[in-house]
Amino acid sequence: MEDRTYTADAEPGDHATVAGWAHEIRDLGGIAFLIVRDTTGKIQVKFEKEEMDDALVETGTEVTRESVVQVTGAVEDEERAPTGVEIVPESVEVVAPAEPELPLDPSGKVEAELSTRLDNRTLDVRREEAQAVFAIRAEVLRAVRDYFRSVGCTEINTPKIVATGTEGGTELFPVTYFGREAFMNQSPQLFKQLMVGSGLERVFEVGPIFRAEEHNTPRHLNEATMIDFESAFIDHHEAMDVCEGTLLAAYEAVAENCRDELETLDMVEAFDVPDEGFPRLTYEEAIERINATGELDEHLAWGDDLPTEGEKALGDEVGGHYFITDWPAEIKPFYIQDYDDRPEHSKGFDLMHPQMELVSGGQREHRYEELVAGFEQQGLDPDQFEYYTKMFKYGMPPHAGWAYGVERLVMTMLGLANIREAVLFPRDRQRLSP
Amino acid sequence: MEDRTYTADAEPGDHATVAGWAHEIRDLGGIAFLIVRDTTGKIQVKFEKEEMDDALVETGTEVTRESVVQVTGAVEDEERAPTGVEIVPESVEVVAPAEPELPLDPSGKVEAELSTRLDNRTLDVRREEAQAVFAIRAEVLRAVRDYFRSVGCTEINTPKIVATGTEGGTELFPVTYFGREAFMNQSPQLFKQLMVGSGLERVFEVGPIFRAEEHNTPRHLNEATMIDFESAFIDHHEAMDVCEGTLLAAYEAVAENCRDELETLDMVEAFDVPDEGFPRLTYEEAIERINATGELDEHLAWGDDLPTEGEKALGDEVGGHYFITDWPAEIKPFYIQDYDDRPEHSKGFDLMHPQMELVSGGQREHRYEELVAGFEQQGLDPDQFEYYTKMFKYGMPPHAGWAYGVERLVMTMLGLANIREAVLFPRDRQRLSP
Repeated sequence: MEDRTYTADAEPGDHATVAGWAHEIRDLGGIAFLIVRDTTGKIQVKFEKEEMDDALVETGTEVTRESVVQVTGAVEDEERAPTGVEIVPESVEVVAPAEPELPLDPSGKVEAELSTRLDNRTLDVRREEAQAVFAIRAEVLRAVRDYFRSVGCTEINTPKIVATGTEGGTELFPVTYFGREAFMNQSPQLFKQLMVGSGLERVFEVGPIFRAEEHNTPRHLNEATMIDFESAFIDHHEAMDVCEGTLLAAYEAVAENCRDELETLDMVEAFDVPDEGFPRLTYEEAIERINATGELDEHLAWGDDLPTEGEKALGDEVGGHYFITDWPAEIKPFYIQDYDDRPEHSKGFDLMHPQMELVSGGQREHRYEELVAGFEQQGLDPDQFEYYTKMFKYGMPPHAGWAYGVERLVMTMLGLANIREAVLFPRDRQRLSP
Repeated sequence: MEDRTYTADAEPGDHATVAGWAHEIRDLGGIAFLIVRDTTGKIQVKFEKEEMDDALVETGTEVTRESVVQVTGAVEDEERAPTGVEIVPESVEVVAPAEPELPLDPSGKVEAELSTRLDNRTLDVRREEAQAVFAIRAEVLRAVRDYFRSVGCTEINTPKIVATGTEGGTELFPVTYFGREAFMNQSPQLFKQLMVGSGLERVFEVGPIFRAEEHNTPRHLNEATMIDFESAFIDHHEAMDVCEGTLLAAYEAVAENCRDELETLDMVEAFDVPDEGFPRLTYEEAIERINATGELDEHLAWGDDLPTEGEKALGDEVGGHYFITDWPAEIKPFYIQDYDDRPEHSKGFDLMHPQMELVSGGQREHRYEELVAGFEQQGLDPDQFEYYTKMFKYGMPPHAGWAYGVERLVMTMLGLANIREAVLFPRDRQRLSP
């Protein structure tokens, strides 16, 4: 439709054709209004019944809600219309009728269960709040990619069907690959490291990852979109700098370019771009501070993972994003490097939002002997990963990196109660369709 | 390494630390040179044996090729050096030694089989030609995404694990999803259509697709990165306009931003940005012209797919990119709309590069009854796709779209002989690792 006018662009004096969904019909007797909604907004179409062709009035006022319509007419000033203009129609065409009974109400006035919404995602995303979330998600991805390029990264794509999982045989979805056993990849980790060892040096990827984790919670997904970064010749502290940089770039872009969306979500006031220089606590400081809050029944000891309540207690205290560094080596994966002078401490880090963990990263082990020893310590068979380990014999530079899911970023950024609000078609323990 | 200088940035007069791979050692007796390579280029390090510390000379001249080294010293003018400068070193450190025997020669002087190269992709991508290809690939993705945003598209991510394939049960990789049968998705087709029907209207996705096709050829992959576009309220000709737009944007971006890479590939002369306005032939014109070339043993008739030799004969004649439109309905999938007044003709199109097919697209069937009839005509059970078809009952606008693989685009753009040259870690009939 080359001659289509978006509702937001219709100016008084135009002769315009708009197309969109029949959002609402208000019949006041002698006069009736059809509100047409498209991706840019809504516009009022006015039917003065006495003065207009009966067929035209009938088409425009009896169309079922959510039908697709196309309206041509004069755009006129109208102070009382929601957007200050209205169309006086010459023609109204029902391009695609909607059944009168809808599985959910896209105006959002009648609330629906999350599962009903996800079953009918097409209708659900017609709600302007959902539109806003997915517009912001897209802007976050744009901003993060642009930031990566500004710091010299090359975009890569790594395979999703793999012969071995990143961390051995756990939590993998099995695939049959031409009669062979294979898996959906849990993470680009090993592949991005291999590309750091190629001359690409500094890479990023945005792509799906697959985790067969059994838990079904408001903050876990079995398929997610991961933002991965890895760079040669940097250490974990420089990796944290880049991590913070991407996050700030995403927040700044949303603040600047998604004002309408934040308004729709009623978040203009609440939306804060975090301050630069996220605090970096060591794991030992973190557990001390959590213990000091008194929020946990039992004191945390060296080697414990941080329980959710502990993360929240500390997050409340810190009041913003922060890193936790120097995790116990025993609870970080084999590819994380340990400090030579205190090998029980690793160079792994997490980036925390006050509400939950966002990022996992670290300095990687780039020395062949130490890497293979790390596999064995974690009960993994290094032979299964020979395609990976052997490249560490041919000049693998020191490197560091991290990854986060865009869904958790959007969830924490917008304060969404459930991570499924940040994915169009979530995959979880129960849900495989649509 | 915050104080690292990239080799390309080292200026005479600097006191610099460079880090990279030991590319080559030239020992001329009293003087020796170590060439250090990083992602930006190469630099010469000069060892005047008599005047320098023996240990320093030994480290710098006996390091194995492809080891990672770090060199600190004074950068000086040197006309005879390949880049006009050299480093007089104060310190040389071998950060990560390489074994003396390498599985392949990253300088590219000794040619290796493709399979050896893919087995050792980390080393292979150290070749500057491979670096150039993947830098161009990344630039293509950037340019295409920016173009999409310039025409009002929202980026989406659709699920890769699905309950049913896009086109029924053929050519799918099965996945076990928590004990349930599922598949790797062949295409975002159905999901992107659902999002067009939501208010997003105009969407794009860049992501992996999975096809269990048995053929193993130089132009097929079983996992590829697909660029998908779909928009409400446009027809197939407008979809072709956007398709051409993305392609031209990609070529222009490479011409403008990847001069060094084209130089490396010896393509500066050969690289042409295609002219705007790709010819649009109907399928009937296409088979007539192919038949007229006399290149095929048998004449093509209505309903035949175009054989590879036919595509090439026509491609030679047209001499550039072109569209083939109005394909026989019977050889296009159910979701392509047919012309109402000549239902044996579909509104499907392909974009052809002179050497091969690049894009498949078309106007979609947006009318519920016709869509369901189309399923049945193609022997598919519409009930299996209810999550998709039912949304066509709630106001699905007319829409059109298309998809192409970034690998074929890069392959045709750079004249690569094998599509595997355009993927870091290809997946094919035999290859599942690395």
